[in-house]
Order: sequence, then C-alpha cells, then structure tokens
Amino acid sequence: MRVPSFRPLAAALLSTALLAASPAFSQSREAAPLSAAALEQAAQLRERATQDGTAYGLIESLTTEIGPRLPGSEADARAVAWAKARLEALGYDKVWTEPVTFPKWERRSEHAAVVGAHAQPLVITALGGSPAGDVTAELVRFDSVAALEAADPATLRGKLAFVDVPMARSRDGSGYGAAGPVRGRGPSIAARKGAAGYLMRSISTSPHRVANTGITRFDADVTPIPSAALSLPDADQLARLLTRGPVQVHLALDVGWNGEYTSQNVIGEITGREAPGEIVLIGGHLDSWDLGTGAVDDASGVGITMAAGHLIAQLPQRPRRTVRVVAFANEEQGLLGARAYAEAHGGADVIAQHIVGAESDFGAGRIYGFNTSAPAGQRATSDAIAEVLRPLGIDYLQDKGGPGPDISPLAAKGGAWGWLGQDGTDYFDLHHNANDTFDKVDPDAVAQNTAAYAVFAWLAAESEGGFGSAPKTEATPEH
Amino acid sequence: MRVPSFRPLAAALLSTALLAASPAFSQSREAAPLSAAALEQAAQLRERATQDGTAYGLIESLTTEIGPRLPGSEADARAVAWAKARLEALGYDKVWTEPVTFPKWERRSEHAAVVGAHAQPLVITALGGSPAGDVTAELVRFDSVAALEAADPATLRGKLAFVDVPMARSRDGSGYGAAGPVRGRGPSIAARKGAAGYLMRSISTSPHRVANTGITRFDADVTPIPSAALSLPDADQLARLLTRGPVQVHLALDVGWNGEYTSQNVIGEITGREAPGEIVLIGGHLDSWDLGTGAVDDASGVGITMAAGHLIAQLPQRPRRTVRVVAFANEEQGLLGARAYAEAHGGADVIAQHIVGAESDFGAGRIYGFNTSAPAGQRATSDAIAEVLRPLGIDYLQDKGGPGPDISPLAAKGGAWGWLGQDGTDYFDLHHNANDTFDKVDPDAVAQNTAAYAVFAWLAAESEGGFGSAPKTEATPEH
Repeated sequence: MRVPSFRPLAAALLSTALLAASPAFSQSREAAPLSAAALEQAAQLRERATQDGTAYGLIESLTTEIGPRLPGSEADARAVAWAKARLEALGYDKVWTEPVTFPKWERRSEHAAVVGAHAQPLVITALGGSPAGDVTAELVRFDSVAALEAADPATLRGKLAFVDVPMARSRDGSGYGAAGPVRGRGPSIAARKGAAGYLMRSISTSPHRVANTGITRFDADVTPIPSAALSLPDADQLARLLTRGPVQVHLALDVGWNGEYTSQNVIGEITGREAPGEIVLIGGHLDSWDLGTGAVDDASGVGITMAAGHLIAQLPQRPRRTVRVVAFANEEQGLLGARAYAEAHGGADVIAQHIVGAESDFGAGRIYGFNTSAPAGQRATSDAIAEVLRPLGIDYLQDKGGPGPDISPLAAKGGAWGWLGQDGTDYFDLHHNANDTFDKVDPDAVAQNTAAYAVFAWLAAESEGGFGSAPKTEATPEH
Repeated sequence: MRVPSFRPLAAALLSTALLAASPAFSQSREAAPLSAAALEQAAQLRERATQDGTAYGLIESLTTEIGPRLPGSEADARAVAWAKARLEALGYDKVWTEPVTFPKWERRSEHAAVVGAHAQPLVITALGGSPAGDVTAELVRFDSVAALEAADPATLRGKLAFVDVPMARSRDGSGYGAAGPVRGRGPSIAARKGAAGYLMRSISTSPHRVANTGITRFDADVTPIPSAALSLPDADQLARLLTRGPVQVHLALDVGWNGEYTSQNVIGEITGREAPGEIVLIGGHLDSWDLGTGAVDDASGVGITMAAGHLIAQLPQRPRRTVRVVAFANEEQGLLGARAYAEAHGGADVIAQHIVGAESDFGAGRIYGFNTSAPAGQRATSDAIAEVLRPLGIDYLQDKGGPGPDISPLAAKGGAWGWLGQDGTDYFDLHHNANDTFDKVDPDAVAQNTAAYAVFAWLAAESEGGFGSAPKTEATPEH
C-alpha cells in the first residue's frame, strides 16, 4: 500500500485552531451544528488515533487466530465469538448479535489442466455459487461479455466458455464495476447457450499466480455450470495456446451449496448521552473469502471501525447520539448480513433515526476523499467534518462516493451515507485471492483510517444537524 | 526485472573503434589473440543481437507449448523433442542428444493445515526428494539450522520441525547460498532427531502466497521424513500463532521417488572452421520445477544461448573453434545432465579441448558483470571480450563470478569458466515457485543477455588464446 506522508502535527493543530474562522465554515448558510468543544475534541481524537495501534492489533488478531472466514464455515462461528469478545473488551456499552440465515457454499477441491499436446496444470479457483462438475472440453475464448452474449449457441454447446477481460488499475476501484459482469452475468449467459463450463480471467490487477474467487448467481432459468477464474498468467497462457490451435481443458470442481447456516451480525454500541435512539453507524464485514485470510477484505474494516468506536468510548463523555459499530455477516455472497440488518432495523422511523452510515470495505489503503449523501442545505455537519479530516490528507470531494456495500440496503430505504474513500490502487492485487494476508496491511495507513472514522463518527454523533436520512417515498428523489 | 538504459549506439561503436588503443588492451603483456576483423564482427554481432527477438520467442515457445518440465515427466520428453527441433531449425551444423538416466520424483498431491482452535489451511509445497506421508503433530520452531542442530532430540521426537530463516535480497544471489542448508541439510538433521516431518520457510524473497520447492537429499543413515516449504505469509502466520501457544499442523504429502527415467542432454554445434575439436560451450538447462513454467529457471538460459549460437551461425563464416550449445537435462535434482556430460566428455584431452564454458542459469535479468577463470598471464582473450561487452553496461569484475551450475562438473575437472553475471535482485521472487511464468521475462533484458553470450562465444571461439583449461592434477590449484 502507498503511504503518503502525514502533514506535520503542528500544521494539523493550527488548522483546527483556525477552523471556526475558515471560509468554508463561516460562509455556511446553516446554523453551526457543532460546538467549538466538540470540534476541539475531534481534533484531539484524530491526533490520538494516528498514534494508536488498536486497529492494527485487531486486524492481526482476526487474520491470525481465525484466518479465512467463509460464510457458514466452522471459522464463521469462531469469528462471531471473536468479534463479540473484542467489542466487550473494548469498552462498548452494549454488545449483541442478530441472526443471519443463508445457504452455505463449500469449496472442497478444484483442479484444472490443459490436456493434449500442450498438457500442463492451470491455477484456477471456483467462483462462489458454482456447482460441482468434471468437464473436459474445448475452449472458446471471448474478449468481452458482449462477445459471449452475441455468440451463436451452436459454437458453444458442450464447450468451455473462456471470457478474457483485463481489469484496469485505479485509485477508486472503478475497474471493478466494469469487470463485474464477467463474473456476475457471464456464467448464466454461457449456461443458457449450452456451454459445459465457464472459465474467466480473474477480476484482478495482480501478475501473480493466484486466482480470484467471488460470488456468481445463476439465473433461475438456467442449469448452473461449473465456473472458475484463472490467474492472470494462466489466462495469458491459454490465450497464447489458442494462437497455436484448439485447446482442450479439464476442469474438475468439487464445490457447491450444502444446506443452510445461521451466522450473526455482531453489534457494539456507545450509547448516546442525549439522543440514544439516534444512531451513527460504522462498520465492516466479518466474513471473508477462503483463499486468503481476509486481511484487506475485510478484517481491516472491522478493525478500523471497532477501534474508532473504542477511542470514542475512551473520551470523557459519551457523544450526544449513539455510535453503533456493526461487523456484518456474509457480505461476500450478497450482503446477507446487511440485508438482515436493514430488514430488522429499516422501519420508517428507524431510517430517520439512522442518522448516517459508513462502511470500511475497500482495503487498508490511506483515505484520500470524504463525502456524504447530505443534500444541499443540510451539509453543515458534513462541511465541519471535512475540515477536521483535512489534516489527515483527506480532500472534501463533494461529487464523489457512495454507500459501502453493507450500507447500501439502508441507503436504498433512504438512509444517509458517509464515504471515506480509501486509495484502492493496490486493492485488486489482493481482493478475493490467496495474497490477502496480514503482511499486506500497513500500520500507518490503518491508523490514518481509524482517525478518519473516529472523527467522522464522533462529529456525526455530537452534531445537532443531520445528513438527510428520511424514508424514501415516490416523491423523494435518489441521491 | 529492472531495465537500465542501453548506452547510445554511437558511443558503443566509438568504444569499439577505440578498442585496440585502449589502455587495458594495449598494456597486456600477452600477444593480441584476436584480429581487428574478429573484434569488429563481435561489435556488429552485439548490436544485431540487442535488436533480435529470437531468444524471447524461444522462451515464449518453451514456456507456453511445453509448460512445466519436471525431470522424468511426460513434458520432459516433449521438451527434448522441442529443443532438438529448434536447434535444427536455427541453423546449427550438428544436433544430437545424449542420454541422462536418473531416479524419477513425482508430486501427486500436497496439503497442510493448522488444526485445532485456530484451524486454517496453509500454502505449502513438498521439497523435491521428499517421501510421502500424513502427519499431524505439534510444531517446534527454529530460527536457524544451527538451532535445529543444537536441539535436544527429546524435544523434537514425533513433532514437526519448522525452520524459519528469512532470505536476504541481493543482486548477486548471495542470499541463496546462506539459506541453502535450510533445504539441503535441515530435513536430514530433523529426521536424525526423530522429527515426524519438516516444514521450512521458503527460500524466497516473494511476499506472495506461493511456496518454493527445490531438491533435498536425505543422508544415507536417516529415514526420510515428509518435508515441505511454506510461503512467506504462511511462515509468518505460524510464527504469530506460536506466540499464542502450541500449534498443531496436519501435513499430507503424496509425493516420492518412482522408478528411473532416461532423459537427454540436447546439443547443437556450430562447427569450427579451423579447430573443430576445440569447444566453447554455452547453455542452460531444459528441465524446470513443476510449479511454474520455468521461465526464468531456465527457459531463459536455454533461449538466450540457443539464440546466441543462431546469431553466430548467421555470420559470413564459421568461427575458428566450435561453439557448442547444450540444453542440459535435470539440473534441478542434482546437475544430472551436467554430470553425465562431464563423464562422457571429461577425459583429460577433452577438458583441454573444452576451451571455456558458461551457463545462463540465473534468470532473465540484465547482465552487469563479466569474468572468467583464466589465470594471470592468460587473460588476453578475457580482456578483449570485456571491452566488447562494456557498451552493454557490463563491467569487468575480475574478482567475481564462478561456473554456472551445469559448468561446475567440467570446472571440477579443470575446465575454464566464463561468468556473465545477471542482476538477480528479483530472481528469488520467482525461482522454484508458481510465479515463474513467461510474463515475468523482459524482452529487452533477454536481448542484452543474448548479445553478451553471442559476443562471448564468438570471441572465445575466434581467439588464438585460451582461458587456462587444463586437467586438474594435485599440483593445479583451485581457481
């Protein structure tokens, strides 16, 4: 991860001291929603957090002691117990769990190889949601999902579709959205055309020999086919072999859905001193894929937000509102913990009482941008938070951002979101593959993230103002 | 790989034009062993080679069409056929094979996992030469081979020895020698003390989740034990878990020796016009480990030296002496092709007739240094070669180098060696692991290597002088 330097401490303190007089703040047409004391407290919290190792220690503990945390696995239950015990030890006022039930997908074994004149093994990994299967068939390569979609089914029947789309590296992860349909839609399209199996170039920026998993969902009208991703060098190898002539591949997956499992969202609360029913929600997701130890996806988010709440709990007094930290269950297979949370807590009144939500689920890189969904006329609190974040090297990017994955079900019901945008330049080197391990996490970047989440949660909870959370009706436009 | 810039062509040509007048050359007390025409030809060859894609194409072909080439595997035979066909197509005067018989080692499956409270899978790979085995036992960690050697057998009996020694990154690969005993001697030491199995931190500089194989040999007096290497993140994980308390690991290897196999050294010759019985030998090894496709180890060496010979074969006339290119069989499991070659060709007369030998077996990085084993008073040819190599960014390092692995059996009998030292800073990120694939090879660096080998082989073959090859007697000191 890239580690831009901190601004010097003196400059940071000066910037805070000048805050009340700064143009952005004084020109606001709204009443100042935060006291000078609350802002001073936020600046102190920020400086303390940048020196604090709690988040890094939590990430080390979760990735080391629990390891991979596939939803429904034995480690899922260990992770829930870990999160509950940690929140209790970190000084939260209230800690509880809420059940999340989902189908369980298992990976038992997976192999692939080129057969024939150029016989050689391939590094692959099954996509989550793939059925088991043992297929030997000729490859048919496509350089886009559109090309697959346009293919004559006669050319694909009984064959292995191979969709080979490179992913672009970017700070904001925009390449992921573009590549998403290769995993999300490709398998169903290939199945509908009669393909015997599906291979794809991993959605990854890593030149290393690790393949990237991730969930796929088959449309209801198709029979699922065994589906897997190739490491980038293996995808390149197949493309080169195809220039020599037909290529036969053997794909053998022993994976699949196997019953139901009930996991838990794990929740900790710093109870508000004046408005305990008004909630500022931060969190990450506790589950991970099984190939790495889920360090950047998403032990980091869990550690950063748990530590941010812990630092707030250590302040002389509770914030005005409640700060709630959620370690969501099973994000990876369809935001299942987040959907359960929104269903349990998403009534009309409750949406208005979820003042704002922000999830850390884009790795452990430094945060470079901040924004919220607050509409014009309700941005005074956002403006104030932006000023306190600035000494961390965080720009106020008022046209950027969105809800984190596990905030999106609440946001769909009208809940406001905060965005603390992490530098994801290297994120897709690690995301969903075996290289997502603790050694890739930079402690200084984690401390900067913790500072940002602590400032955000503290000021959002201390503020007299809000971010525009309101149950959506037909008259309410999308943010 | 790092790619320093070439010196401009004009400077290179100037340097050649000034060669005869250069102090290093003119101050030599030996007779000039090379004609101006030969030196001019060498300079032209150098410039042509830096623009030539033959080596890169050979590396692409071998790694793509054959893939991994484990000695004794089905791919071993395909690689031999490939090398023979390529040498024939590249204009060599004579192409033949010589048999190399060795025991065959197979890797069928390998798994390891932490069991118990922190259960999680581990990325490991069996060491070549390991027996099969299925062991669940407590880890005992050592931070050096010396510490293992000092251990009381009572503390190790029935347990898994875990030797956790980091490797230093360096340009000249010196960290490899220091780490070598962890793989070479560690398993036998652990077996002698009654350990049930052996785990080691990979001899690697890669932070990625790939483990490095490599041969180990058990001493005759011990019963071999299942032995494997961990990826660096996995070794770190075990070290962290051990700070929490005892750690049990399950290690299951289905690997082992299985009969004998006869492979081939593949040899091509550009027959000398005046002294065909005097041989300048260059080469690489055709086999590889099975985890990657053996791109830097050692398709690169095979491609570079085959292409260098090809470029010499295209010159208007044959060199004075013979240039012989050897693609050695089974280097990885004990220089077995090289030993067979030295046995077949290492008679007293033949050693004197092997004027000099140089192997490319340290990856595909740029060559930064040149030397030979020629003793004082016999360095005129070496001095002349060094001058022609200089425009490639190659320094004449008269206290550095040694014979490549497959040259060492000849060198042990008194054969002279040439050293074209490659930048190995990144070599141990790839060596013996799954990441050793074609995409890691830089075409410009390969062309620079080809130019260096072509210049070396051409001038050594064209020279009237030698490098001091002479059968060793008790009176002959080691180089």
